[in-house]
Amino acid sequence: MIIQLESDISEEQLSRLEEKLASVQYKTNQVTTQNGRYIIGVGKQEFDIRSIGTMSGIRDIHRVSDAFKLVSRKWKVHETQIDLGDDVCIGNGAFQIMAGPCSIESEAQIESTIQHLLDNNVRIMRGGVYKPRSSPYSFRGLGQEGLKLWYKHARANGIKIITEVMMVDQIEPMMDYVDIFQVGARNSQNFNLLDALGEVDKPVLLKRGISGTLDELLQAAEYIFSNGNERIMLCERGIRSYEKAYRNTFDINAIPILKAKSHLPVVVDPSHGIGVRRYVDAVAMAGVIAGADAVIMEVHQCPEKAFSDGQQTLNYQESATLIDRLRQTRALRESMGV
Amino acid sequence: MIIQLESDISEEQLSRLEEKLASVQYKTNQVTTQNGRYIIGVGKQEFDIRSIGTMSGIRDIHRVSDAFKLVSRKWKVHETQIDLGDDVCIGNGAFQIMAGPCSIESEAQIESTIQHLLDNNVRIMRGGVYKPRSSPYSFRGLGQEGLKLWYKHARANGIKIITEVMMVDQIEPMMDYVDIFQVGARNSQNFNLLDALGEVDKPVLLKRGISGTLDELLQAAEYIFSNGNERIMLCERGIRSYEKAYRNTFDINAIPILKAKSHLPVVVDPSHGIGVRRYVDAVAMAGVIAGADAVIMEVHQCPEKAFSDGQQTLNYQESATLIDRLRQTRALRESMGV
Amino acid sequence: MIIQLESDISEEQLSRLEEKLASVQYKTNQVTTQNGRYIIGVGKQEFDIRSIGTMSGIRDIHRVSDAFKLVSRKWKVHETQIDLGDDVCIGNGAFQIMAGPCSIESEAQIESTIQHLLDNNVRIMRGGVYKPRSSPYSFRGLGQEGLKLWYKHARANGIKIITEVMMVDQIEPMMDYVDIFQVGARNSQNFNLLDALGEVDKPVLLKRGISGTLDELLQAAEYIFSNGNERIMLCERGIRSYEKAYRNTFDINAIPILKAKSHLPVVVDPSHGIGVRRYVDAVAMAGVIAGADAVIMEVHQCPEKAFSDGQQTLNYQESATLIDRLRQTRALRESMGV
Amino acid sequence: MIIQLESDISEEQLSRLEEKLASVQYKTNQVTTQNGRYIIGVGKQEFDIRSIGTMSGIRDIHRVSDAFKLVSRKWKVHETQIDLGDDVCIGNGAFQIMAGPCSIESEAQIESTIQHLLDNNVRIMRGGVYKPRSSPYSFRGLGQEGLKLWYKHARANGIKIITEVMMVDQIEPMMDYVDIFQVGARNSQNFNLLDALGEVDKPVLLKRGISGTLDELLQAAEYIFSNGNERIMLCERGIRSYEKAYRNTFDINAIPILKAKSHLPVVVDPSHGIGVRRYVDAVAMAGVIAGADAVIMEVHQCPEKAFSDGQQTLNYQESATLIDRLRQTRALRESMGV
Repeated sequence: MIIQLESDISEEQLSRLEEKLASVQYKTNQVTTQNGRYIIGVGKQEFDIRSIGTMSGIRDIHRVSDAFKLVSRKWKVHETQIDLGDDVCIGNGAFQIMAGPCSIESEAQIESTIQHLLDNNVRIMRGGVYKPRSSPYSFRGLGQEGLKLWYKHARANGIKIITEVMMVDQIEPMMDYVDIFQVGARNSQNFNLLDALGEVDKPVLLKRGISGTLDELLQAAEYIFSNGNERIMLCERGIRSYEKAYRNTFDINAIPILKAKSHLPVVVDPSHGIGVRRYVDAVAMAGVIAGADAVIMEVHQCPEKAFSDGQQTLNYQESATLIDRLRQTRALRESMGV
Repeated sequence: MIIQLESDISEEQLSRLEEKLASVQYKTNQVTTQNGRYIIGVGKQEFDIRSIGTMSGIRDIHRVSDAFKLVSRKWKVHETQIDLGDDVCIGNGAFQIMAGPCSIESEAQIESTIQHLLDNNVRIMRGGVYKPRSSPYSFRGLGQEGLKLWYKHARANGIKIITEVMMVDQIEPMMDYVDIFQVGARNSQNFNLLDALGEVDKPVLLKRGISGTLDELLQAAEYIFSNGNERIMLCERGIRSYEKAYRNTFDINAIPILKAKSHLPVVVDPSHGIGVRRYVDAVAMAGVIAGADAVIMEVHQCPEKAFSDGQQTLNYQESATLIDRLRQTRALRESMGV
Repeated sequence: MIIQLESDISEEQLSRLEEKLASVQYKTNQVTTQNGRYIIGVGKQEFDIRSIGTMSGIRDIHRVSDAFKLVSRKWKVHETQIDLGDDVCIGNGAFQIMAGPCSIESEAQIESTIQHLLDNNVRIMRGGVYKPRSSPYSFRGLGQEGLKLWYKHARANGIKIITEVMMVDQIEPMMDYVDIFQVGARNSQNFNLLDALGEVDKPVLLKRGISGTLDELLQAAEYIFSNGNERIMLCERGIRSYEKAYRNTFDINAIPILKAKSHLPVVVDPSHGIGVRRYVDAVAMAGVIAGADAVIMEVHQCPEKAFSDGQQTLNYQESATLIDRLRQTRALRESMGV
Repeated sequence: MIIQLESDISEEQLSRLEEKLASVQYKTNQVTTQNGRYIIGVGKQEFDIRSIGTMSGIRDIHRVSDAFKLVSRKWKVHETQIDLGDDVCIGNGAFQIMAGPCSIESEAQIESTIQHLLDNNVRIMRGGVYKPRSSPYSFRGLGQEGLKLWYKHARANGIKIITEVMMVDQIEPMMDYVDIFQVGARNSQNFNLLDALGEVDKPVLLKRGISGTLDELLQAAEYIFSNGNERIMLCERGIRSYEKAYRNTFDINAIPILKAKSHLPVVVDPSHGIGVRRYVDAVAMAGVIAGADAVIMEVHQCPEKAFSDGQQTLNYQESATLIDRLRQTRALRESMGV
């Protein structure tokens, strides 16, 4: 049960509400976000919710039987839009492409990538400065210094930054240099990290776990929201399966289901979703026609020389072609009025 | 190794070829299909294939290192087109929709479905008369009598029939009444059935196994081709995964990969691919933009009353809307020159 | 619902029963096996089953809510024992080892294997004469002639034969030469084959599908039982997963669950269950301590030269060691009174 | 490549070694643990390793081609033993049982559990004070205060403590109160946490990820070792699969494979491995006969009232029976001289 509170609800009104819920054995969680105040009530007893809905200080009340509550579309039927400023929005009709290398490698690479984005009117650049790697002996990213360097060039060119955060202590230093915090597949159920990202006012892109269920993804998003941050995007990036012909199984089914179950924007990552360069375009277009609000993809001036993920990274020419196709695909979907 | 033979190769020329291959320890299989004669050579020794390519009676020779040979695109770069007659073609540029109920239930249902197809200019009707069911106590189809009834109406209206064959002994009686034999997911590695379907001159739609790999699907197709029938379509219908939010995980990755690895047409089955009616449209469109040559989908006058699979079956209105969207999606893909 | 009938139930008594069930909208299936007569009633209406239980000609009546009925332990709490004659029994306290090559290759190989079995007091020999192979170009077995040759030696030495049957038409010719028909993983839902094996009075070992659920396995067994053959064994042989360190994931969980859900004997196949020779012993012992009634394993005089599956096949010395360990493990389990 | 250094290697000797490795384009990592000093060299060039092995200051040198190095059995053939003090050892012949509730709930529960352990001569108690939960609204554990309370009773009774750590900042406060840090399945690739646990001198039990590969598990252990902590145990706790008859698929294959690939002790968690109380015993015994060095299992005075995981938790009577069976099973395996 989600109870939306009036922003000016008095302490006394709040007490009465808490008492009422306690009387029917509901446990409550108070949530305050950028956009509003809520009480989440969890309990089993049946009772007439109108007895609460009519209390003063209450804006609205909704039954939500799913394990996830605040991220559910059952109480908020309009899609959430993430506004990054400078007319860069995602969701509720706004479509974006995010492109860039797997890892930030050098100043020259940053400049080259930004030029490619500008040439193709792409507003958001992806790139890793903290890299989760299976082996401790692999390249683990340029870290905070790489981020500052990247930020300098991105800001000068009006490009927004999305990059992965791996642990709580990185959030504060990264805060001023990123536009979207990305939570990677391996941290999809790192609940302390999710809690902490709920306490900042910065958009979060949350990737589905390597073998995460859609329900787990939505509950992970609930961690962020219930800690105070409503600005969340859900990202399908392929799941692990028995098939060996590619890297991951891109779960196209996830797109319409997440859109139906949640009001949050849905982003697709075709690069990890199939993991083979020549097939990235088909998967990306499929994601868009199925309803994705954004595409995040790996692009590199010279994929063969990339520090990581080169096998699934597009070169600039392939990227430019795909960007154009994605926009045509998006336009077709909009024209259908789906 | 695939050796294409001239149709008029002499016995003597053939003997010389077999001797040559035996001398380098290659095992050989002779294949004669509707379209040509081939010898498949399997061996490990390296030798100069030009010494064979220049022998008389030989049209061409190709190295194919995959486990599958004749269905590979490595020797036949042009896409195969399946021609059902009456201007109904699939593959190599030709796109079709196949629609109809999970099970053929009654004459009234047949007539109603055909009218829906005619109204929407769909030329191929799907439907089951032999139904593989997990439980022996479930409805198992109307059988041969149902097929004959269906055939009568379909033929009168210029509609082609695709239906599942489950065992070798059914092939001969069904032969005159079907336009495409369908091999279901549970029979995807029923090798005796595949062998037998290789001996008839009738198109076969081969579904991927419930947890079949793409390589297994292509090798299953190789069974049919190597027994003499080149008229094969590959069908992606979703794979089994851990996710419980839907019935199967539609493997969108399979579409571009099958198209790249094989010259055979690729068909997508979004109904089984996600298994939930309201999401079938997103998956179907995704399959088409990713390159499918045909869509096979479940449609019923009243899905709630269908004998089987009602939860994933579209009603006529939903079907008509989707057919229109699929054609627009296909047109966009063609216009991109992918 | 399972209704056990008296063997001498009269036609009139049967009619009354059918009428009664029809009156509560139950669909019925009559089943006659080696051991008894049953009616399976499938319906949803609640009614007092004593009104049937007290009718004449009825031995007993049981509610079974599972999708599988006759193979369920809910009506038959005692374990089924398969008796192959000559004091070779499986299940309900009797433990057996089945060993032999993947493929029957030659008379010398048959003789050698039988000698190994005799040396180790093993009474059942496995081996394939019809081999399901992913590729049409692989060795597909010696067929009926190989079976006859094998039978001659096995019979002379008191060894029982288990071998795979792949299609309905093979059953009749194989019938006189086999002691147990094996249904392979790829045919686990070949329902026509299961139907036909239900019509013979010969034990059947049914392997779980490559990604089959336990429920599907039990329903597949229900096909055989409901067609008239109660002599069924269930076989766990590993399932397909994402892990690449071995061939299949042996599902140890399946053993106690199948034993709890069904009265049928459970056989484990550690050779396919892990697919790597040096680890077969650990998996086999695990299967036995977990409750398996039999072990089926691949053994070859010289695994390196086996026509198929050599990588997971034990040599005679490894086999002898393991057989001894399996018997000790079994003895420990019996002593625990699990 | 692993180069074991003499503890008294001089700076000059070390420089010469680094120069030598740089000259063949090897990247190096220096590792100092409780037990020794190592250099991990990663490179592709072939060279005669004796030219290094004979340098002064070098104890030994080993080629290890796996992605994981220090945890590999290729350089350390003897099994590692974890010594918790007070004659409580795990691995290299020493076998232990760890038992206790999913969550620490109250002082009474702690006392009751400890009495159960003492009654059955179990030396290690498991329990969670920081609980990773899918939903933010679930009980998340008693935290540091619960741990201190538990420690007071455990220490007084000679019981060792294993409990989960979820984030880097928890390590220092927990340090004095735990005997084994547990890393849960969801944190199996939380690389910052692994790095930090490598910097403490306290044993770590590392659980396999929910869908982790064995190779990923070993590389995760490599993170801990390469940061300085050799005292690691690997834990198989079931993987995610399509099967719905139980919670997880216990991967019995993992036991012999991990034992063969690594020198680290292997622990099995049958409670999560199958997730259904009545089947825990079969899975636990299977794990032990297959070679596990320890079993960790969930036990509660009254599983029906447990705050979490009650459905897979044994009561004291079931636990006592299983403990006895596990010791018998272990004794059998030892007697076999596997």
